[in-house]
Order: sequence, then C-alpha cells, then structure tokens
Amino acid sequence: MAELSTTSDVPVATIKYYLREKLLPAGESETANQARYGSPHLDRLRLIRALIDVGGLSIASARSVLEVIDSDASLPETFAVAQHSVSVAIEPSDLDPADLDRIDELLVGWHVSPNNPGRLASARVLSAFRGVGQTDDRGWFARYAEAALLIATADLDEIESRPDRAAKVETVVVGTVLGDALISGLRRAAQEHVTSERFS
Amino acid sequence: MAELSTTSDVPVATIKYYLREKLLPAGESETANQARYGSPHLDRLRLIRALIDVGGLSIASARSVLEVIDSDASLPETFAVAQHSVSVAIEPSDLDPADLDRIDELLVGWHVSPNNPGRLASARVLSAFRGVGQTDDRGWFARYAEAALLIATADLDEIESRPDRAAKVETVVVGTVLGDALISGLRRAAQEHVTSERFS
Repeated sequence: MAELSTTSDVPVATIKYYLREKLLPAGESETANQARYGSPHLDRLRLIRALIDVGGLSIASARSVLEVIDSDASLPETFAVAQHSVSVAIEPSDLDPADLDRIDELLVGWHVSPNNPGRLASARVLSAFRGVGQTDDRGWFARYAEAALLIATADLDEIESRPDRAAKVETVVVGTVLGDALISGLRRAAQEHVTSERFS
Repeated sequence: MAELSTTSDVPVATIKYYLREKLLPAGESETANQARYGSPHLDRLRLIRALIDVGGLSIASARSVLEVIDSDASLPETFAVAQHSVSVAIEPSDLDPADLDRIDELLVGWHVSPNNPGRLASARVLSAFRGVGQTDDRGWFARYAEAALLIATADLDEIESRPDRAAKVETVVVGTVLGDALISGLRRAAQEHVTSERFS
C-alpha cells in the first residue's frame, strides 16, 4: 500500500478510506499485514481521483459509476447511470410544465425520455432564467442545444472508437463526468476571446 | 418582510440570512420593527436564488458577482469576476506545462490571457483525462472547443442585445452561472438522443 501511495501520489489514509468505502477492491493478501496491489489498482485509483477531484462526484456517486463499469451493462444503460450520478435529482412534479414544454421545443426531433436528467435539469435552468427576467427571444438557448448536439456527437464518436466494451464503458463514464468540466472551461476561454474581439 | 417571503416563496429565515450576509440590501425602515421591501428587493432575491440554488454558487461567490453588478465595471471586467466566481481557483504552477500546451493548441488563434480560469480549468481536466488513459487522437476535444466558441458567441450576441449597461451586466452574470448548467443539461439530453439513434 505504501508503494501504491507513492506511485499514485494519493495518501495512504485516503487509499484506506476508498477501500473501506468499497471504491477500490482489496489487494491480494500476502501476509497478515501486507497485501499486493497491482496495476489494475493503480488505474482504478486514478479513475477514482479523476471522478471525485476533477468531476466533483460524491463518494456515493463515484461508487455507482464504478459499479456500472464493473457490471455488464449496455452502453445506453451505462449512460443512464453516469448521467444520474452527475445530475442533481429533480422530480418532474417540481417543475413548471411551461418550462418542460419550452425545453421540449428546443429538443424537437430528439429521442429523449421524459425522465432524462438533462431534460429535467434544463427545464429547471430555464425556470431560473425566467425568474430573473432573462428571456431568449433571439434564439440564445437554441444555439446551446445546437452546441450540445455537436458535443454529444463527438462523445459518441469517441466512445465508438474504443477497442472493447470495457474501454467504451469507461469512456462513457469519464467523458460524462469530465466533459462537463471541459466544456465549461473552454466556454470561459471562448468568452474572453469573443469579448476581446468585440470590445477592443 | 413577511410579504416579501410570500411573494418570493423564500422563507423569512433565509431572507434574514441574506440580509446579514449583505447579499440583499436592507429595506427602508418604517418603524422599529418594520421595513419596506420593494420590487428591486424581490428582483434581487430571485437573482440570489438563481445564483445559489441553480448555479451552485457559494454565499461568498454570490456576493462577488452581486457587487460587480452594483459597480460600474466594464463588460470585460464583469466577465472576469463572474468567471472567477464560478471557477475553482487553480494556480498555473499546479499544472503540468504539457497540459497547458495542449490546451493552447486547442485555443490557437483565440485571445485568452494566461490566467483565464477556463484555460487553467481545461488544462486540469486534460490532465485528469490523461491520468485515466483517455486520449483524444481523433480530435474529440477540438470539437468541444468548436462547440464552446458557438456558445460564447451566442452569449455575447445575447448580452449585446440588452438595452443598457445594467441589463447587459446582469446577463453576463446570469449567463455565466446558469449557462454551464444549461449546456450540461442539454448535453445529457443530446447524449440520449445520439445513443438512441446509433444503438436502436
């Protein structure tokens, strides 16, 4: 475990915590006080750190997505779990039907189930925009939907390029969790660029 | 205050907390026990809720962005404050220079300052992707940058359409904070759509 800690740059106490929380499988026991940790443990540890530190997942959410990686779930099932894990739980009944209608207008022609966490989260965001008097009469949000479709298409192209099921499923999970952080980061860089082009 | 609570659907205790934290300006005192709250208070209260509940801002971050709305900061300055408020603080020295180089390749031709929080956050995400063995040999992340530019252009078009400085600045703040939530929501809906098109 000391070696695993050094190689991964994760403190021993944190590794023990992940073991207790069943995020990381136990090492192979060698003696009463020693266990063997191999490269699958190192890979899993790096994945846990990426999900929690950069993706901002809770321990419980990280456990859910790791479980789906280890299961034989299909890609659509994996997406559903990954999406739920990174989304705030919202009940359709807590939303204003007018906001759901407005989202469905933006998603017209898309195959999206009523309980898709993104559909519900988007309706909640529209409600918040509306609550502060921000409308999109000029098609602001339709351009977001267009950009979202580009991103999702890039995600799926990337997933399909992976060699086997395990790699595809891991890309679904990692891409879902880290992709949000990437797009928001790139958006801020792009905002500075476009602002600087227009105002200087 | 009881009326403000009823109209806004925000509990009195929460309103008092926002007053103490100086997010909400005090009402005009009428008697020792009564103050007058008008429609600017209601608007501000709705904005606070949108920033905190939907945008996920901390009290301190919400205060920063409200202060910039109330100042006479320029649009680029407002963007900088709004961006810092919604971003995890990252020091360039904590990042691997190779990840910063990789981001700068994605942003080639963009005017982005070295400390742009989005540039730093994106480099951190690339490091996390790399740490779990996820590469983008096929241009995955370049397509994210393209989508980010579309979104930022839509943001700026919307901001410029607002009638006056106060409205423009409020759109910068609200758009920066809520826009992240909207794009991640729409992305999840788009992922279900593209997945369903390809796998069924």
